[in-house]
Order: sequence, then C-alpha cells, then structure tokens
Amino acid sequence: MKIAVLGTGMVGRAHAAKLAELGHEVTIGTRDVAKTTSETKPDQMGNPPFSQWQKEHSHVKLETFENAVKNTDMILEALHGAVAVEVLKALESSLTGKILIDIANPLDFSKGMPPSLFVSNTDSLGEQIQNTLPKTRVVKTFNTMNAMLQINPQMLANGEHHIFTSGNDADAKGKVTELLTSYGWKHIIDLGDITTARGTEMMMPFWLRLWGSLKTPMFNYRIVTK
Amino acid sequence: MKIAVLGTGMVGRAHAAKLAELGHEVTIGTRDVAKTTSETKPDQMGNPPFSQWQKEHSHVKLETFENAVKNTDMILEALHGAVAVEVLKALESSLTGKILIDIANPLDFSKGMPPSLFVSNTDSLGEQIQNTLPKTRVVKTFNTMNAMLQINPQMLANGEHHIFTSGNDADAKGKVTELLTSYGWKHIIDLGDITTARGTEMMMPFWLRLWGSLKTPMFNYRIVTK
Repeated sequence: MKIAVLGTGMVGRAHAAKLAELGHEVTIGTRDVAKTTSETKPDQMGNPPFSQWQKEHSHVKLETFENAVKNTDMILEALHGAVAVEVLKALESSLTGKILIDIANPLDFSKGMPPSLFVSNTDSLGEQIQNTLPKTRVVKTFNTMNAMLQINPQMLANGEHHIFTSGNDADAKGKVTELLTSYGWKHIIDLGDITTARGTEMMMPFWLRLWGSLKTPMFNYRIVTK
Repeated sequence: MKIAVLGTGMVGRAHAAKLAELGHEVTIGTRDVAKTTSETKPDQMGNPPFSQWQKEHSHVKLETFENAVKNTDMILEALHGAVAVEVLKALESSLTGKILIDIANPLDFSKGMPPSLFVSNTDSLGEQIQNTLPKTRVVKTFNTMNAMLQINPQMLANGEHHIFTSGNDADAKGKVTELLTSYGWKHIIDLGDITTARGTEMMMPFWLRLWGSLKTPMFNYRIVTK
C-alpha cells in the first residue's frame, strides 16, 4: 500500500520504518520540509535530528502534509494531540473516503507533570478528528502503549497482550486489523464506534502512573477473561 | 480486625461477606437502618433486599454509618461515588487516624449510558475524600474491576492479574496490601500517592467499553512487563 505517516517524532518514525520494512511505500508528512531537514539537534524528547534518521531510512520519503496524503491508500496520524485537529482540518478534501489511523493522545502539558488530557470524559480527540473529517474513515488504535511496542508486539511476552480499535466504519476497522496483524498483533479487541476512543485515551493517565511505578515504559495490558 | 463496611449495595455486601469469612468482625454502615431493613424489593441493580441477604450473613451487623465506624480498626467505603464525600464528611471526627479503603468510582449517570465521571483528569474522588478527611489515611483500591473479582481474584486465570493501590500513607498501604493478600491477591502494584487515583478512576470508561465488547464483566488486567 501507499501509506502516509503524519508526524516526524518518535511515533511517526517508528511506524514509517515498520511500514517500509513490511514492503509499503511510505511518505512522512511534515509542516515544513526545509525546517524538518535542517534541524541539527535532538528534539525535546531526545530523538536524533530527522535528517540523521532519514539517512538510515532513505526509502522513506519526506513531503509536506498536503503532498504526503495525496495518492495514498491509508494515513497514519502520529501528530502531537494539541495540533492534530488543526493540521487535519487543512487536509480535509485530500482525506475524503480514506482510512485515517489516529494514534495521538490529547496530552496537556500546561498543568505540570504527569500531563493531563485537554479533552476527555464526554468527548475525545478521536471523536473531534472524526467530526472534523466527516468523510474520512477514522480508526483509533495504538494509543495505549509505547511506540516501540506498537510496532513490535513480539518484544513483550511473545505478543500475549492486547491492542484496541475504535471507529465507526466496519470495513476500515477490518483493514486496520489486517495491518495490525501484519505488525504481529495477535490479540485485537474492537471496542466499538469512535466514541469508545474516550476509553482508550483516558487510560493514558493510568499508563503514566504505571510507568512511574514500574520504572519502564515497556509494558502492556493483557485482558484476562478466563 | 473490627472492620466497618459503608454501603449496602453489591460491592459492600461482597466485601462484608468476604471479610466475615476471613474471620473479621464486620459491621455494615447505612444511612437509615430501619429503611434498609424494611426494603422488600430488589434494588435498581437487581440485588435482593438487604434483609434477605442478611439472613444468610447473620454474623454481619447493620448499624448507622456513625455507629458502624466507632471502635473499628479499618473502614471500607463502598458508597455510590456521588454521595461518598457528603457521607464521609459527617463522620470526620470518628475517622481520625483510621485507614479508609475507598472503592467508589465517580460515576455520573446524568449524561446517558455508559456513565461518564463527575470528577477526573485534574482531580479524583480519592483525592476529594482525602482532602475532606485530612486526618484519615485513605487508600484507593479495588475500583478497577467487578465486585465478585475484587473479593475472589482466584476465580479468574488462577489469580494471574493485577490490582492497584494509591495513597499517601505508606503504613496504611502496607496494611491494605496485607488485606489484599488475605483476599488472595498475588499481584499488587503501588501506583504512588493519592493523586494516582486519577489513573485508576479514569480506567472506568475503558472498563465499561470493554464490558460492552466482551459481553461479560468478569475480566481484569494483567500488566505484562516481559
């Protein structure tokens, strides 16, 4: 497939590399290509400059958001939650009919650490994105764990743990489920329509405390039913 | 120990029965003893009238909230979230220095089903209770699963799943951990101070969607770390 990955941070890079490894044609989208390629210092999360990463992943293209999403079959959105709606709104016409995987969490760093959420409880970022793009088929997934685990579930407990999907379009969820399976995911739970993104987004505050307690972000949930 | 259980619903009854079975001296507290004992119909959740339950658990006493908490070593609060702060505020002087286990979730049924939370994100019911009772040692636990699982972790996957604690007082958390162990809990994670109750309370929206997807409330989380 031709897949666009929106976002040049750790999450976007992890998925771009994984998707290319799986044989997909991958283009990363960014706001300002010249700015992204000219950065020479690690970002605030300590990730190396994009240009350094791209040298090791030269088969992954870098384009503007607008050019990246054109002529693609699927879009994987790994933006900072705070800018996701604004960026996607500007791409609305190019996203008509397409499947958009929303990974972002609505993290609010303005009230101290650990971050809280800027939308929750009676709404969610997933719903806001679906409402912003009524003709795009939004599927929320991946947002309940560390990026390294998202792309490689086998690195933990032989993949015996869970990932969740939320979305209004059954066909889109089916195609995303196929993609998850190709990543190595064995246990995928469909929570229901896009309003169920409230559930997975609201796990983030718990996830952050567990990280604090376990001293590692390399953990995930296994849903035990029997 | 002498233990008071506040709340006559399914959760309070489950813990009262379990604690009595473990040899503790248990008193259930209610707002109005005469009203509780005179009910003849199942409650809105379908639980049988209290008097019927008490016939099968005649060693468990029923008292007013005020009388129940007097001369007890530990209080287990299983009230409806919406009334918890009000009920506990009135008992403040009787709760000084004591350990209070808070099981309640801040469920708001006023905005339709599934319920949302009436406090979340930058505050929690656990914190509100601790702030209401500054001299009581509040420990939040049990609130991430079905009541039957709370009291009998072995009924699922040989107990290979997790429970969490949040609280400011290390000694109180230690004693609650001993109680959890006596219930059969093998995997107990201390998340930190009472502010970490935001994390476990905010899992409830996810739990409710999982219940909808799995068609059973008999599930729990196993935290997979390797």
